[in-house]
Amino acid sequence: MTTSSQALLRCYDCGCTYDHGDRTRCSCGEPLWFDLDVSGFEWPAETNQETGRDPATAGSWRYDAVLPVSAPDTTTLPPGSTPLVRAGALDSFADCGLYLKPEGQNPTGSFKDRGTAVGVAHALDTGADWIGTVSHGNMALSTSAYAAAAGLECAVFVPADIPSERLDLLARHDPHVFRVEGDYGRLYEETLALNTDGDAGVTFVNSDTPLRVAGQKTIAYELLEQFRLGSSNVPSSPNMPSSSAVPDAIVLPVSSGGQASGVWKALRELTRSGALADDDIPRLYFVQAAPCDPIATAFREGREEVTPIDADETIAVSIANSDPPSGTRALTAARDTDGAVVSVSDEATREAMDRLATDAGLAVEPSSAVALAGVRKLSDRGEIAADESVVTILTGSGYKESVETEPRCRDIDLADLEHELASVVES
Amino acid sequence: MTTSSQALLRCYDCGCTYDHGDRTRCSCGEPLWFDLDVSGFEWPAETNQETGRDPATAGSWRYDAVLPVSAPDTTTLPPGSTPLVRAGALDSFADCGLYLKPEGQNPTGSFKDRGTAVGVAHALDTGADWIGTVSHGNMALSTSAYAAAAGLECAVFVPADIPSERLDLLARHDPHVFRVEGDYGRLYEETLALNTDGDAGVTFVNSDTPLRVAGQKTIAYELLEQFRLGSSNVPSSPNMPSSSAVPDAIVLPVSSGGQASGVWKALRELTRSGALADDDIPRLYFVQAAPCDPIATAFREGREEVTPIDADETIAVSIANSDPPSGTRALTAARDTDGAVVSVSDEATREAMDRLATDAGLAVEPSSAVALAGVRKLSDRGEIAADESVVTILTGSGYKESVETEPRCRDIDLADLEHELASVVES
Repeated sequence: MTTSSQALLRCYDCGCTYDHGDRTRCSCGEPLWFDLDVSGFEWPAETNQETGRDPATAGSWRYDAVLPVSAPDTTTLPPGSTPLVRAGALDSFADCGLYLKPEGQNPTGSFKDRGTAVGVAHALDTGADWIGTVSHGNMALSTSAYAAAAGLECAVFVPADIPSERLDLLARHDPHVFRVEGDYGRLYEETLALNTDGDAGVTFVNSDTPLRVAGQKTIAYELLEQFRLGSSNVPSSPNMPSSSAVPDAIVLPVSSGGQASGVWKALRELTRSGALADDDIPRLYFVQAAPCDPIATAFREGREEVTPIDADETIAVSIANSDPPSGTRALTAARDTDGAVVSVSDEATREAMDRLATDAGLAVEPSSAVALAGVRKLSDRGEIAADESVVTILTGSGYKESVETEPRCRDIDLADLEHELASVVES
Repeated sequence: MTTSSQALLRCYDCGCTYDHGDRTRCSCGEPLWFDLDVSGFEWPAETNQETGRDPATAGSWRYDAVLPVSAPDTTTLPPGSTPLVRAGALDSFADCGLYLKPEGQNPTGSFKDRGTAVGVAHALDTGADWIGTVSHGNMALSTSAYAAAAGLECAVFVPADIPSERLDLLARHDPHVFRVEGDYGRLYEETLALNTDGDAGVTFVNSDTPLRVAGQKTIAYELLEQFRLGSSNVPSSPNMPSSSAVPDAIVLPVSSGGQASGVWKALRELTRSGALADDDIPRLYFVQAAPCDPIATAFREGREEVTPIDADETIAVSIANSDPPSGTRALTAARDTDGAVVSVSDEATREAMDRLATDAGLAVEPSSAVALAGVRKLSDRGEIAADESVVTILTGSGYKESVETEPRCRDIDLADLEHELASVVES
């Protein structure tokens, strides 16, 4: 395997290559990603069995053949191995054959653990003592926890007005928190400029950095392998709406564009290696919250580039990025796979979040629910057909955020137990 | 497979048997559990591969050969398949070779999902429209979510003074919540008395009911299989302190005694089937919070039975049960396996919780941290030796509860980014 310090970075757009560590942006301005030789890739199922690994715990590292770093010798936080589940009860809501990938079951409750794990492994490889990130949500928590587990110091840059609830979550893992007064988009780019690995001693794994995108792409490898095994349910997959070994579409929320880039990268690698046929490539759909939808706006307007917008507030705070650093790359991914980028109202997001919790038992954060709201919108528009299989990535658990709800409550006395229960059951 | 409606229940103590559904307590007063024929049990690893199942998502149902119900045809909430991880960074704190089983990575963030899944499967099998439970914490949340996913109505009985934060968590899955004024221990038993399955139409899966205990025992099957595969880490298991295929001890928190009973049941079944040698049986250690430790008290005093105590408040709210319905069974399990029941101070629990978050990256609830505090205490006492392998079950995620912390925060201006970071990194 090529290690990250030897690996090349390539620009998806103009094709220029650079050594990893030299820069994170191409001279053309677009973000870089790792350029690895994936020609020999094969699905690892049997191999892992032969070597005696427990697949249930191998997680993202199951795909280490296509990662720029080796798995660490040991970890308390194996990322990935989240289930892929068939959500038939939501088929009529989504108007398609719906599969869900609940990434909230990662160690710190979100998809970010996959990228963090790769960033931490690289930091350990290169002897860096510090890891850093710019985030006030899932990525900050993930980075803090993985740094703690790896014995690294962690620098987390958050906006000056971060709610105390979010700080409390982070603080358990004891990172160094920097509350920064100033433009958050500039902060993101300025930390990347400091990202000289061994030199300053801090490895920044911001959301669209090559290390993080490499880790995030394992979501796509994993869901495609699970789908392919025809085993996405427990214990079998009844009502599989499609006889194909590949879903017709993959739908996910988009913010910085890092995760969207990772999924696209996986599809490109799989077709290049021959593990995925060209006419089997799932369409990629990315979803934003309408109050803050720069990528969807560019898609709608047929533009070639994503430009910053003046955004409004949305309940989908984790994906409210008005100036997405990999926005244009995400836009390109959607077009390249015959997909789209759409945005949904907060009202539609609330409805999707509620349906996930009450019909599928899955409590997700609003930023994850946008993806299901997006599926519904795409079905309404005829872009997704009723007989198609659609995998929706639920990026994060809803249990980390407090949500005010209106519980169905009745106050009773113990003496009236049987009567009170019967009156509800029979009604 | 014997189905739950045909299955026998047996009393672990006097050996009496009953049909399932007739009662939940033996005439001698002790709790019942399923009496299944496990003589043909074999570790299912290869079998599952052959049938094309994805082991990463099969979860608890991987062990359906020893469960009283079949896996449902489909589910969005596959329980189990949580990793078993080696936590070398905590070896010196624990003074042994420490393994952790973070059950917070179950779909609703706790170990309870395993038992809930079995209860829900039984309800579906018997045509019950309702499932119920008595809980204000993890079990209530788990039951609400699984009921929602299975299309069942759910009745949750909580104390009248339940904090609104907990109600909000439940309410997302829209159960029928009954806030009950009256003694909580009596409420527990009175709901069991209503538990006539098909008749009243409500299947109660309280914490020590036979269905739940059956599901909970899969934790032990799973961790023993993972340990046996020598694959408890990613990707391999360096520094495995023991060459044995079985851990020397399993340590877990105890409250009602339901989970403790499940782990003991698994060990009994495994030895009966020949999958575990008699002299390989891990010692079982159960840990309570000192302010509320009826089982530890009975153990300490050498008594045969656990009796209710007047308890004080503890931070380990999820395990604060002063009148544990399966307390005597847990006590028996500890003695039978040459283990013990101990209690730890809230201060020791806080320290263990902090070490888990800062040295292993695992945020757990106080009720889980008591188990690690217990390991430390047992090592101090010489009951666990430094060269022994100990699996500690971390029952629930810490992300569902708000915790006040004191973050290491500094407020900076974007213009001072590089300088401020350097001053911290270099200090």
